[in-house]
Amino acid sequence: MKFELLHTDGAARRGRIAFPRGVVETPAFMPVGTYGTVKAVDPGQLLASGSQIILGNTFHLMLRPGVEVIRAHGGLHEFMGWHGPLLTDSGGFQVWSLKSLRKLDEEGVEFRSPVDGDLVRLTPESSITVQHHLDADVVMVLDECTAYPIAEDDARTSMELSMRWAARSRERFDALKGVDSAAALFGIVQGGIYPSLRHASMAGLGEIGFDGYAVGGLAVGESESERLAVLEALEPAMPRERPRYLMGVGTPQDLIRAVARGMDIFDCVIPTRHARNGQLFTHNGKINIRNGRYRNDTSPVDPACSCSTCRGYSRAYIRHLQHCNEILGSTLATVHNLHYYHTLMAEMRDAIEKGRFDEFASRQAEHGKGADRRP
Amino acid sequence: MKFELLHTDGAARRGRIAFPRGVVETPAFMPVGTYGTVKAVDPGQLLASGSQIILGNTFHLMLRPGVEVIRAHGGLHEFMGWHGPLLTDSGGFQVWSLKSLRKLDEEGVEFRSPVDGDLVRLTPESSITVQHHLDADVVMVLDECTAYPIAEDDARTSMELSMRWAARSRERFDALKGVDSAAALFGIVQGGIYPSLRHASMAGLGEIGFDGYAVGGLAVGESESERLAVLEALEPAMPRERPRYLMGVGTPQDLIRAVARGMDIFDCVIPTRHARNGQLFTHNGKINIRNGRYRNDTSPVDPACSCSTCRGYSRAYIRHLQHCNEILGSTLATVHNLHYYHTLMAEMRDAIEKGRFDEFASRQAEHGKGADRRP
Repeated sequence: MKFELLHTDGAARRGRIAFPRGVVETPAFMPVGTYGTVKAVDPGQLLASGSQIILGNTFHLMLRPGVEVIRAHGGLHEFMGWHGPLLTDSGGFQVWSLKSLRKLDEEGVEFRSPVDGDLVRLTPESSITVQHHLDADVVMVLDECTAYPIAEDDARTSMELSMRWAARSRERFDALKGVDSAAALFGIVQGGIYPSLRHASMAGLGEIGFDGYAVGGLAVGESESERLAVLEALEPAMPRERPRYLMGVGTPQDLIRAVARGMDIFDCVIPTRHARNGQLFTHNGKINIRNGRYRNDTSPVDPACSCSTCRGYSRAYIRHLQHCNEILGSTLATVHNLHYYHTLMAEMRDAIEKGRFDEFASRQAEHGKGADRRP
Repeated sequence: MKFELLHTDGAARRGRIAFPRGVVETPAFMPVGTYGTVKAVDPGQLLASGSQIILGNTFHLMLRPGVEVIRAHGGLHEFMGWHGPLLTDSGGFQVWSLKSLRKLDEEGVEFRSPVDGDLVRLTPESSITVQHHLDADVVMVLDECTAYPIAEDDARTSMELSMRWAARSRERFDALKGVDSAAALFGIVQGGIYPSLRHASMAGLGEIGFDGYAVGGLAVGESESERLAVLEALEPAMPRERPRYLMGVGTPQDLIRAVARGMDIFDCVIPTRHARNGQLFTHNGKINIRNGRYRNDTSPVDPACSCSTCRGYSRAYIRHLQHCNEILGSTLATVHNLHYYHTLMAEMRDAIEKGRFDEFASRQAEHGKGADRRP
């Protein structure tokens, strides 16, 4: 993996990550492919929507179909037919979400599979090994996602555990991959909403040394101002020459604000999940396509959009499909929302190159106030 | 619409139906697009699977989204983005399936909408008018689907009602379309399992005169030998120079046996519905892709198949997707099953051209015995 920082505009960054499997122009959004598929679309539709890199969920894939099945196919790319870059998470976030089903200690975390009730153990070493077998282009360290709200002492204890796990993750990655590996390993900054802990986490990870740095433990219940304050405090301490990944974020406005604070790559289920629920993004804000006002509306979802959904189908048609629970209604909506997100990222890249990112961000804040309320 | 009979081999026919919107090589299979979408696939995938013409359900589309919505789009082709030929049924079969919700008299049939409980009236005239607004390339007369089993006298009464409705359908079609219409109107032969009634029905429809003749009232519970006996008795009475449509049939073996008895076009939900339930057709018979034996199977669904599903994905992947209720699992399976059906039709066309249809049919009967039982 090779990262180039091409332009900056304030803290906003325009970069490029080159993988053997393809190039990712940043800022970039990664659709989430939980079970070896980005829900409702195929790899051709992903490419056509502008996807450059997608995310696979180690936790889910470990449970179904199991890593051995994917390994038998030569990895996740071959299994799912996506031949571009793939980032896999460590599984830690999903284990953390299980809460009552888990038991955490120094060694790792043990949980009951929500699929079949089996006892499953995840350690830094086993997570890296699984991601190695999945043949991910970007591997994530196993961390503990710090809860919110949390006292500073507890946030420190949690961050320090994540740091020891990060070192063990690095060690296992290097042992499996060798120094010439084309795959990248990303560390994850934790520390809750406490700037000094975030700095300590960044410094500790920097000493171990990673190919990129993720910001974890956000979008877990904190307010937007708390989240932005963390990014603003942390950003100057993050190395310029490495990609920065803000995990699990967010809405279009969240992405713009995070890019303004120096973040490069993102993942979130919002565009795909919203699509299946009829929430579609447009240049005039989000609309609920199931609303009765679209019953007879022959215009495209977003007249300013060039995606195949907007070129081929009307609002009334997509509304009809979703009312009838037709699969194609999810597919067409997903294609559109992903195209919207990827277009937004491309517009941000362009604005940064032109030194007009602030202007772009203000204009977007104006436009994004929601078209549903308009006549 | 223009029909040419290109070859015959015994009773089997190789033909061509030319519509302004495209050519249909027969024997041909029509995927069913109930609610303005063939479930789980888009028009591009339909074309790639070999679909030449698809079927829309007037009954369902009348209720959702309503004919006015489709009319506002300029017709069903524009609404759903399918620009090839479209056949619409009359809605009669679905009303017949409602049983308890309907009331039938000379004028037409009244029923409670299963969507919202509204009282809806369907007459020969209103069915033709709706199909006209849908802009169907092939319009079907409204008929009463005769039940099975039924006494001969009752079958006659029902057939005679259908005949009067056929005349009224013809009249309304001509009034709406004029004599130069590019759209075709098909009559529907009824008469249960009684050869003399089938002959009387055919003769009566022939006197009215239609662009094509469908065989209705089959695949409603009768035995296969009864169904084939009807076709054998009826076929010599059907005009050679018109396409013949066997409604609602069937499995691959059903199609082969019906082509052997002079039928040209077919529709059925089997390939699409089976796909979503994990039943996939292969050159070695039908398999249940959800079976545990495919868990780790990296081979394609059917090694002899050239569809995009078989070129890009493994049995294990499709099994995994269907186990996780992933939408893509339905899409990939549907693409495959439709490709299988359309390939079967193409093979039949080829066999008829070569005068080897019997040989082809025997070979298929051997192969189609089910791969699930094999190791």
